[in-house]
Amino acid sequence: MPTESKRYAVGVDLGGTNIVFAVTDLKAKALCKLKMPTLAQEGSAAVIGRIAKGVEEVLVRSKVRSSQIQCLGIGSPGPLNARTGVVYDMPNLPGFHNLPLRDLVQGKTGFKSFLENDAKAAALGEKWAGAARGVENMIMLTLGTGIGGAILLKHELYAGADNSAGEFGHMVIDPDGPLCGCGRRGCLERYASATALVATARQALSGGTPSLLRKLSGGRPEAVTSLMVHQAVKRGDKLAKKLWAELVDRLGTGIANLINIFNPDCVVLGGGLMLADHDLLLPLRANVRSKAFAQPARRAKIIAAKLGEDAGVIGAAAVGISRSGKD
Amino acid sequence: MPTESKRYAVGVDLGGTNIVFAVTDLKAKALCKLKMPTLAQEGSAAVIGRIAKGVEEVLVRSKVRSSQIQCLGIGSPGPLNARTGVVYDMPNLPGFHNLPLRDLVQGKTGFKSFLENDAKAAALGEKWAGAARGVENMIMLTLGTGIGGAILLKHELYAGADNSAGEFGHMVIDPDGPLCGCGRRGCLERYASATALVATARQALSGGTPSLLRKLSGGRPEAVTSLMVHQAVKRGDKLAKKLWAELVDRLGTGIANLINIFNPDCVVLGGGLMLADHDLLLPLRANVRSKAFAQPARRAKIIAAKLGEDAGVIGAAAVGISRSGKD
Repeated sequence: MPTESKRYAVGVDLGGTNIVFAVTDLKAKALCKLKMPTLAQEGSAAVIGRIAKGVEEVLVRSKVRSSQIQCLGIGSPGPLNARTGVVYDMPNLPGFHNLPLRDLVQGKTGFKSFLENDAKAAALGEKWAGAARGVENMIMLTLGTGIGGAILLKHELYAGADNSAGEFGHMVIDPDGPLCGCGRRGCLERYASATALVATARQALSGGTPSLLRKLSGGRPEAVTSLMVHQAVKRGDKLAKKLWAELVDRLGTGIANLINIFNPDCVVLGGGLMLADHDLLLPLRANVRSKAFAQPARRAKIIAAKLGEDAGVIGAAAVGISRSGKD
Repeated sequence: MPTESKRYAVGVDLGGTNIVFAVTDLKAKALCKLKMPTLAQEGSAAVIGRIAKGVEEVLVRSKVRSSQIQCLGIGSPGPLNARTGVVYDMPNLPGFHNLPLRDLVQGKTGFKSFLENDAKAAALGEKWAGAARGVENMIMLTLGTGIGGAILLKHELYAGADNSAGEFGHMVIDPDGPLCGCGRRGCLERYASATALVATARQALSGGTPSLLRKLSGGRPEAVTSLMVHQAVKRGDKLAKKLWAELVDRLGTGIANLINIFNPDCVVLGGGLMLADHDLLLPLRANVRSKAFAQPARRAKIIAAKLGEDAGVIGAAAVGISRSGKD
């Protein structure tokens, strides 16, 4: 049970479907977590009310008193301004337009609050309490629907002039490559996200290429997932292995570029594709080593994120902890 | 004339051909400069002796007393460790192998000394006393024989884990592109350095393409320079304009990638190609704006370096000034 004098942080991970809450110690270690539905359709005022309720509830469950809370950190998707605490827009959350989310939550809860992009918060979570503990310079790529990115240099988040640094997914690695949603061709995201992998698999299946994926997807190419592709790779399927090798090669190019640019201590990979763990990591490490400069390639450990779906809420708490000492 | 109580810095820019010295105020503004030949063939001990002599001489000329010198900064080419002050290797300077250059210079001169890579020092020079004064986040590309790079974030140099961050020239932007000296294909350097421009021009001329460049080079393709290509562009030469447009397009891809990655306030361009100034800057800005994300593209000013050949020595002084307050 927490002692009276010890101090704690609250993390809030606001998503389109769920809000996750945690109480952590000041090393971002979680004591207690809580999840509730966002119910975004009820509008921003209702969602903020639910955030305040959730915070109250997770405090009760953790047996930490309000007076022991040093800070509250919020991780939130979409473009925002971490300095002013304003959320510009939120995918899947209508009504969150130019909303002073940080101050609204601070007003409702009474806790000194901080706001950060959820991908950046997750990277901070990995540094404080996950795969990259104590690492000075790291970059993180989240390989999911798209490719999210975050940069931590000299032990701190680097956010860029408009909080939009880290768009690794939109590094062009082939000017003749496939068209990307951003309007350019050959973005890394078009090769190395779960979405891209699934799209190429579906295309090959529709084109008639024989593959175990046909069976795994019940004969419906549109039902193929990145997990199925990984399963087919493990079972030696030729098409799946080819797609996997292409993904590794393109992702290897992107990561080698980033290693030459940042000379980081560590590259952390998260997101859905990392469910493949070593089946992705091992060939990827070899590929990157063959491409990046020798010394930076030796230096940069390429590792899997550890916190999984907790990264967001732990990271949100870490955002609060790391900034509350400074403001 | 400098007042007795005012404090100053010394910059030393060590090159393969010349050593440049400067005395600057603590805003890196030069009072006095001096250049002498390196005479690298005489060996490292002799070169260090000449550095000490040059420092003595530039102090005498500037009428600043030794007691007024706060620090000395050395900019040096090649791989080095800025923390330990050891130079690993120096292109064109035989005998500079694993040499504790910083401590040797400090021993000889008696001034608190600091060492930095010359490209990084030049970027710091531009920030302190050049094109990017007061800028918080900037990246610099030097478009010359190769492409040098430097990163300044939150007002400080970012060097990476092994002091090798900023290898922008070896960002692969086309996996099917021409082979690079680094062993990979399609590195930015193979498209957007002066060397690359000259190589493609020579190739086209050897292939028989008609061009004003034939006349400008006296009929000798091997005599073509990047300056000649620029002259031919200004005079409307078709081949030169095509090569120039290709260079702008590839460099635009590279810079757009970097803007998406860093979301910087400023991108500073230096090196021989920048003699073309607005003939390169104007089409490049338009190209980058069409490729990078809107907000970061609006934010990032793309500008020419200002200090020219003084960047190295001013930057070296700035390295000393910015670090002497911290150690």
